[in-house]
Amino acid sequence: MPDPADALSEHAVERLIAYRRHLRQRLMQGCDRIYSHDLAKPEGVTPAQVRRDLMTIGYTGSPARGYDAKGLITHISSLLDARSVGGFALVGVGHLGRAILDYLARQHPEYKVAAFDVNPDKAGGVTHGCRCYMLDEMKQVLTQQSMRVGIVTVPADAAQDAATRLVEAGVCGLLNFAPVRLRVPARVYVENVDIALRLEKVAFFALASRPKETQE
Amino acid sequence: MPDPADALSEHAVERLIAYRRHLRQRLMQGCDRIYSHDLAKPEGVTPAQVRRDLMTIGYTGSPARGYDAKGLITHISSLLDARSVGGFALVGVGHLGRAILDYLARQHPEYKVAAFDVNPDKAGGVTHGCRCYMLDEMKQVLTQQSMRVGIVTVPADAAQDAATRLVEAGVCGLLNFAPVRLRVPARVYVENVDIALRLEKVAFFALASRPKETQE
Repeated sequence: MPDPADALSEHAVERLIAYRRHLRQRLMQGCDRIYSHDLAKPEGVTPAQVRRDLMTIGYTGSPARGYDAKGLITHISSLLDARSVGGFALVGVGHLGRAILDYLARQHPEYKVAAFDVNPDKAGGVTHGCRCYMLDEMKQVLTQQSMRVGIVTVPADAAQDAATRLVEAGVCGLLNFAPVRLRVPARVYVENVDIALRLEKVAFFALASRPKETQE
Repeated sequence: MPDPADALSEHAVERLIAYRRHLRQRLMQGCDRIYSHDLAKPEGVTPAQVRRDLMTIGYTGSPARGYDAKGLITHISSLLDARSVGGFALVGVGHLGRAILDYLARQHPEYKVAAFDVNPDKAGGVTHGCRCYMLDEMKQVLTQQSMRVGIVTVPADAAQDAATRLVEAGVCGLLNFAPVRLRVPARVYVENVDIALRLEKVAFFALASRPKETQE
């Protein structure tokens, strides 16, 4: 039987992640029912888009009473978290790497995380509860711990080598912060977060005549 | 006379920034002429798209000899850098903030950068050559130094306050790393870089049946 999650587009997955985050916030504020327009507004989409997305994943609300927040969170999570990524392997323990290790430790203590760095002073240490290894140890560590997602936070000139090592060690998804296009096999999913490009872009549009807002 | 740069879409600006970066790399490698397919491949677009983009900004090459790399860099820069943003004001000197200060100091020493933090131990100090101030000093510092772009690297619950202060101090563009939608006047351009969402997305697609690559 095909996995229904496979039918979701990249944008649909991004919206579901954002809806779930918003639902959790509302639930913490004591709000246990939510309408499509409540979810639409903070995400910059239309209420019709929200209803379409939730219909696609087979969740229905009532026009009068809205959606049950807790039930919807559980339903979205059953789709998004069904596949276990095992954990994250991060290469490059600089400031950006530490920011992400810190985020993972605080927000996702359920994930196993291993860090790798060329600097022998960093390898062997522990950052935000995460053990740091030498690059040469990657294959062994990732195989033992079945980590399937790699995070590349090294400088541009070291990014391809980091990606190649991660793929050889078995990862099938990469979150790449280096401002380069990685060459990887087609089966590996790559998500690029190009901070340098975003910085130049906002500098350009800050002074443009037509103000716009970028949705991500 | 309308500024031709105002006619550029967000995606076109992103591509021009990427082309320029690639041209600079090629020039450093000693390559002074370049073809549309050389620029297309690393950016994941078609050669026809590259030619269309460069035609839009009024730059032409020759089918036989390609584009002059140096001339094209100058031409793109005349469009992208024509507007002076004055400098960047960053709020939140944690690991992520430091990573960006470090990047700006190394790659863009021409920009003035000021950092702000609630922590009095950080304010008063200097990070990567950048002076750090208290939040209350923002309006005065930004007015004096005419900084027009703000960078928000504080936790989610402090992001709206940081954005409001930056806008009141005169910025007209925001690069927001906090996983929240900022409420700002329509004239302010907001670019969201939602690292937490990207992390969840790559975890989901890493194990999907259909591999894809995301272009940014």
